[in-house]
Amino acid sequence: MGKRLHLNAFLMSTGHHEASWRLSESDPHAGTSLTHFTALAQTAERGKLDSVFFADSPVLWGSVGRRPVSAVEPTVLLAALAAGTERIGLIATASTSYNSPYNLSRRFASIDHLSGGRAGWNVVTTAGADAARNFGLDDQPLHRARYERAAEFLDVAFKLWDSWNDDAVLADKEAGVWADDGRVHAVEHYGAHFSVRGPLDVPRSPQGRPVIVQAGSSEDGKDLAARYAEAVFTAQQTLEEAQAFYSDLKSRTAATGRNPDGIKILPGIVPILGGTEAEALRRERELDELIRPEYARDELAKQLRIAPEDLPLDRELPAELPDEDEIEGAKSRYTLIVDLARRERLTVRQLIGRLGGGRGHRTLAGTPEQVTDALETWFRAGAADGFNIMPAALPAGLGEFVDHVVPLLQARGLFREEYTGTTLREHYGLTRPVSQYEQAGATAPAALG
Amino acid sequence: MGKRLHLNAFLMSTGHHEASWRLSESDPHAGTSLTHFTALAQTAERGKLDSVFFADSPVLWGSVGRRPVSAVEPTVLLAALAAGTERIGLIATASTSYNSPYNLSRRFASIDHLSGGRAGWNVVTTAGADAARNFGLDDQPLHRARYERAAEFLDVAFKLWDSWNDDAVLADKEAGVWADDGRVHAVEHYGAHFSVRGPLDVPRSPQGRPVIVQAGSSEDGKDLAARYAEAVFTAQQTLEEAQAFYSDLKSRTAATGRNPDGIKILPGIVPILGGTEAEALRRERELDELIRPEYARDELAKQLRIAPEDLPLDRELPAELPDEDEIEGAKSRYTLIVDLARRERLTVRQLIGRLGGGRGHRTLAGTPEQVTDALETWFRAGAADGFNIMPAALPAGLGEFVDHVVPLLQARGLFREEYTGTTLREHYGLTRPVSQYEQAGATAPAALG
Repeated sequence: MGKRLHLNAFLMSTGHHEASWRLSESDPHAGTSLTHFTALAQTAERGKLDSVFFADSPVLWGSVGRRPVSAVEPTVLLAALAAGTERIGLIATASTSYNSPYNLSRRFASIDHLSGGRAGWNVVTTAGADAARNFGLDDQPLHRARYERAAEFLDVAFKLWDSWNDDAVLADKEAGVWADDGRVHAVEHYGAHFSVRGPLDVPRSPQGRPVIVQAGSSEDGKDLAARYAEAVFTAQQTLEEAQAFYSDLKSRTAATGRNPDGIKILPGIVPILGGTEAEALRRERELDELIRPEYARDELAKQLRIAPEDLPLDRELPAELPDEDEIEGAKSRYTLIVDLARRERLTVRQLIGRLGGGRGHRTLAGTPEQVTDALETWFRAGAADGFNIMPAALPAGLGEFVDHVVPLLQARGLFREEYTGTTLREHYGLTRPVSQYEQAGATAPAALG
Repeated sequence: MGKRLHLNAFLMSTGHHEASWRLSESDPHAGTSLTHFTALAQTAERGKLDSVFFADSPVLWGSVGRRPVSAVEPTVLLAALAAGTERIGLIATASTSYNSPYNLSRRFASIDHLSGGRAGWNVVTTAGADAARNFGLDDQPLHRARYERAAEFLDVAFKLWDSWNDDAVLADKEAGVWADDGRVHAVEHYGAHFSVRGPLDVPRSPQGRPVIVQAGSSEDGKDLAARYAEAVFTAQQTLEEAQAFYSDLKSRTAATGRNPDGIKILPGIVPILGGTEAEALRRERELDELIRPEYARDELAKQLRIAPEDLPLDRELPAELPDEDEIEGAKSRYTLIVDLARRERLTVRQLIGRLGGGRGHRTLAGTPEQVTDALETWFRAGAADGFNIMPAALPAGLGEFVDHVVPLLQARGLFREEYTGTTLREHYGLTRPVSQYEQAGATAPAALG
């Protein structure tokens, strides 16, 4: 049996294409509908996908006219989906800048229990002043400071998830001893950003620790991923760039002393399927024509830190733009957008079309065979351990991928036919971490009581 | 049709009696089991109860030897139960001292969407230094300061929940306008404890605002309840005390300009049912005999702010104890315990038995008829709008209440036979609040963009 690839379904309300909500079949209230998200997760599970995933930022971003920007908070959504599914992994984004480690670690450990070991956390530092202003700040903390806080946040989370030994609960009804105080550990973390005594008030969860996902591709982001992440979502437009990113991140991971197989790199793709290539391209064009460029131009101007009036729709980007070094948020996304526009000499209108389809991720419009070929090429060429599937329109785009691409991947021996494990770690082929307090031995000084 | 009473099921892992986990039929891992909690919520729904409820404190409290102290975080548990039930209200406790208003308001609005309007929030300020030490503090903030923060937290939450007009989402596919920027409002709250720009990133939820529950009975707690709460959980041992509390809180509520019918007062009761009174008393005694008093004495000593060795098991409480005024956390619980012990001249061992059954709530051991009589008496005597049902052992205690007490209450015309509404507000007979921004008119200066 050869190496298999991993597939994650990145879900949004009506899909990743910004105009998808305007399709006649789309539910404009999908973003708050449990029925909608349960059906999507069940479809992904029918396709034996590794996981479903939700992005997040705790702020209302941009104009509400443009698209269904609102969304239910993803950790509670994961818990609801745990009840409606049995095997598929459940990954939510949450911010280390605007949460406290005790509360957030506890929520993820709880979801891991409720789902029988299927929880994953996409760790983000949350760019942007608008989000900061919902949390008592005038502006976002500096990029470097956000990543320092993220690293300490993860250290605290790991301590809290490790704070109960796996065998702490004795359940000795006869003696009347529920758990062993000596196997539950205060974490006593006193650092630059956090002071947390612990222990967690939830026993160690089925996966030991939820799976850690990371999605920032800046230098700070890649270093954080190399130290902590077990899966990485990334936007890569060309095979060469994807190979370079893959090789760089595997090397950085190895340099921290970790096994590079313990970090799965999953570039995003936006599949638009058709019975023929022409049909797929027609569907892509129909979606692009539904974009209202005045909304998208405002967002693009914000991302580029320039005024919307400096972006005439039928010209290329201005020659003078800020350096990536001056950008304090979403650095790697900024660079991707500018590089894409310069490389293909796109007008603002064309760039908006490309970004509107999947915000900088690679669109694959074609037949199921063509999409499968593209995935296989990247997988075999050392550009990906699998893919983050971002359907342009939902629910249809996910169902089409599961019904038409997954069987081809299976026929080629590239994807599982059935789940072989029950946890997200098992789906991704990741080891279950041993508690740092068990490693330290039973006489660890941090033992409580 | 006469006035009906309201019933909430207060759920814990294996039940409210501290020794319930030692019963042969109890699952000692129930506290992290979705199967367990889903079955309980479905049982409560079968009984047409108004709601289920989960207490919470973000800390591991006391010895893990004594009982299953751990529990999954209740907001994610609510979301999972939303998927497994259809009509019953879903109430979780969350702390205003150790959360940020944006994140918590968003989670409750999200649960309200996912559940179709069934969410309630029990607002607590979280007593105790141990919890504070999980959030970067050496000790808890002062009682008064915690309540001031709670009031401002609720003001911010109300603004965020109101920040989308009910008709903000236009879903105009033809024109390509998803929502109206003029109907979504920045909240621009800049107060003593919080600065929050808003708006929320979730549209207005089915209930407008989740139902606000409060459970502290100190002076500060009652004032907070009078201003904000729509349901109150309270521990009352005698009819006279319960009547006094009821009348006091209704008056305080009226004094704030609110309709006193808009606050439902629900004392807790711990039912222990038997086919005969003797059988019920035997079941109560069997549970009490499973208590290990050394654990319970340590907790009692902590609550009374004295040393465990000053509490010999077979003597009454010491004559000298701290004044309630000196207590900075859980004031009303402190007073209830001391009053109970003094009034009934209980030894420490007896007091431990009484508290172990339901931590100060009223135990009703008897036949279904006796329990029904007791509920009816308090309801008709102006001591309660309904009850917070705290089964001693779970799941059995809830099933017995639903199968044997609920039908008697229905036969007496005191309780609904079917749900008549779909939201928790409708179950409790509460009005749906109008957004403060809609009241202010379409030209409100807070409109965004």
